[in-house]
Amino acid sequence: MNVVITGASGFLGSRLTEALLSENSAVPVAKLLLADVVRPQPHLDPRVSTVAIDLNQPSAANLIIKPDVHILFHLAAIVSGQAEADFDLGLSVNFDATRALADAARHQVPSLRFIFTSTVGAFGGNLPPIIDDLTAVTPQNSYGSQKAMCELLLNDYGRRGFMDARIVRLPTISIRAGVANKAVTAFASGIIREPLNGLESICPVDRDLKLWLSSPNTVIRNIIHAATLPKDVLGPWRVINLPGISVSVDEMIKALHTVAGDKATSLIRFEHNELIARIVGSFPNKFDNTRAFGMGFIADENFEQMIRMYIRDDLKR
Amino acid sequence: MNVVITGASGFLGSRLTEALLSENSAVPVAKLLLADVVRPQPHLDPRVSTVAIDLNQPSAANLIIKPDVHILFHLAAIVSGQAEADFDLGLSVNFDATRALADAARHQVPSLRFIFTSTVGAFGGNLPPIIDDLTAVTPQNSYGSQKAMCELLLNDYGRRGFMDARIVRLPTISIRAGVANKAVTAFASGIIREPLNGLESICPVDRDLKLWLSSPNTVIRNIIHAATLPKDVLGPWRVINLPGISVSVDEMIKALHTVAGDKATSLIRFEHNELIARIVGSFPNKFDNTRAFGMGFIADENFEQMIRMYIRDDLKR
Repeated sequence: MNVVITGASGFLGSRLTEALLSENSAVPVAKLLLADVVRPQPHLDPRVSTVAIDLNQPSAANLIIKPDVHILFHLAAIVSGQAEADFDLGLSVNFDATRALADAARHQVPSLRFIFTSTVGAFGGNLPPIIDDLTAVTPQNSYGSQKAMCELLLNDYGRRGFMDARIVRLPTISIRAGVANKAVTAFASGIIREPLNGLESICPVDRDLKLWLSSPNTVIRNIIHAATLPKDVLGPWRVINLPGISVSVDEMIKALHTVAGDKATSLIRFEHNELIARIVGSFPNKFDNTRAFGMGFIADENFEQMIRMYIRDDLKR
Repeated sequence: MNVVITGASGFLGSRLTEALLSENSAVPVAKLLLADVVRPQPHLDPRVSTVAIDLNQPSAANLIIKPDVHILFHLAAIVSGQAEADFDLGLSVNFDATRALADAARHQVPSLRFIFTSTVGAFGGNLPPIIDDLTAVTPQNSYGSQKAMCELLLNDYGRRGFMDARIVRLPTISIRAGVANKAVTAFASGIIREPLNGLESICPVDRDLKLWLSSPNTVIRNIIHAATLPKDVLGPWRVINLPGISVSVDEMIKALHTVAGDKATSLIRFEHNELIARIVGSFPNKFDNTRAFGMGFIADENFEQMIRMYIRDDLKR
């Protein structure tokens, strides 16, 4: 398979790259094009090529969606905090660039499997206690609104046979390695990662706030799984809520305590941030993932295991 | 109030114009600008001016959204059948032109009450038996997809204070006067209107298909009512399902028989159309309108009354 990743230099993009190039990849990769706004690092694997591209430039999409491409993982996005701070940038990158890619697929590769990463942040407002696949999307943040607009557009492209759209709504990822990004949910990694690295971390929300979480490993497995599903298995609505687990900030901190003791948890300081608390508080934290499990998507077991996964895979000692 | 109507030459636009100019209008009108792609007919009322405008032309939106405008009724659209036949035209008129109007409001009149007519055709796919305000929008037609994208965009503009968005999802209108339009639901007026005018009419769907209907008078009252609601009464999701009544084609024909006898109903011929039956069959036909009724929106009493309303107001004898 010839595969393209946008946003390839990002945290998930890098993880996805490694997973696709690994020996036991669920998608056999012949060629892999890594695209990002800054040229991704060259890769030792000869199957890999890289390109620096601004997807908002005219015909940029046509430069990466060539007729020989089989799968696109479109991860490039302006994350929630930044999309809230800079509306126009968010709309152009999150929506217009996605539309341009969809049009490139439609006109050049209608068979393209177009894997789009949406977000549980598309949900918001007056939510039922448990979200399922028939719950309305009424977002209370610009990032979620823009992603939800893409869902509608891509679903219609898929329905019309313009391309093969597969849309996965990602839970909040925890624990991200590296430095904090501009997502409003960045703290969900920071309050674990920073203390494990001996650094102080600020928690901008209350202890009882619940989050819907997935580890990076699990979400990458699920994103790749979406690309391997038989055509049309998603049915008339090509969007699926990826599985996650519901964990409160308090439970996250207790799990950190179990794994790393007082030394770690004493580094967490609570400092309320109204904007973050409001937006993250509008996100759903409990889903019925029956449909996703039925299609073979997976969830993490518990948060303690997710911390141990981070320590095993990412912690630099 | 200074008011602008787009799509002012259309059936609903003309009705809305007359209602706003009438003595007992719920919105007191100082100036009324009628905009359409072909210049609307001049009007005797001195408050009225008209403009021919293609909203997809650059800066067209700025020509009608001037700083002194208080209310915009944005009705201009490519209807369902045509949007399905010509995807690009539908997307540019239904989505891009709406976005341009929203941007004009944002930059020139953030206080603008932006009344947007969406559609129950935004619903589709695997629907619950009764739709309410928490039911997911998973459209199975391009018109509904484009309208739903606008809902998300305008809701976000409203949330951010870019303008005052009020979005109403219209039921299928029956009975429209005049000639059939290119909506896939055109038959829902045609099978009543044509026989009452002594003409044969083709019904492209089965007798047991149910529709969610509103009379033109009721829907116009509801659209105007949306413009009179206090700011923010719609809450975090600025979209409301307008009330309607659930009527099967069989019940429609029986009501026509009651009103106009065999002479009328014998003029209806059944001729199945797969595309129309599939798309209209994907529309919901039963809603819980509790929220809308609580805000003062209204529904028709029954279909027989809707036929009598058409005869009283529109039938040329």
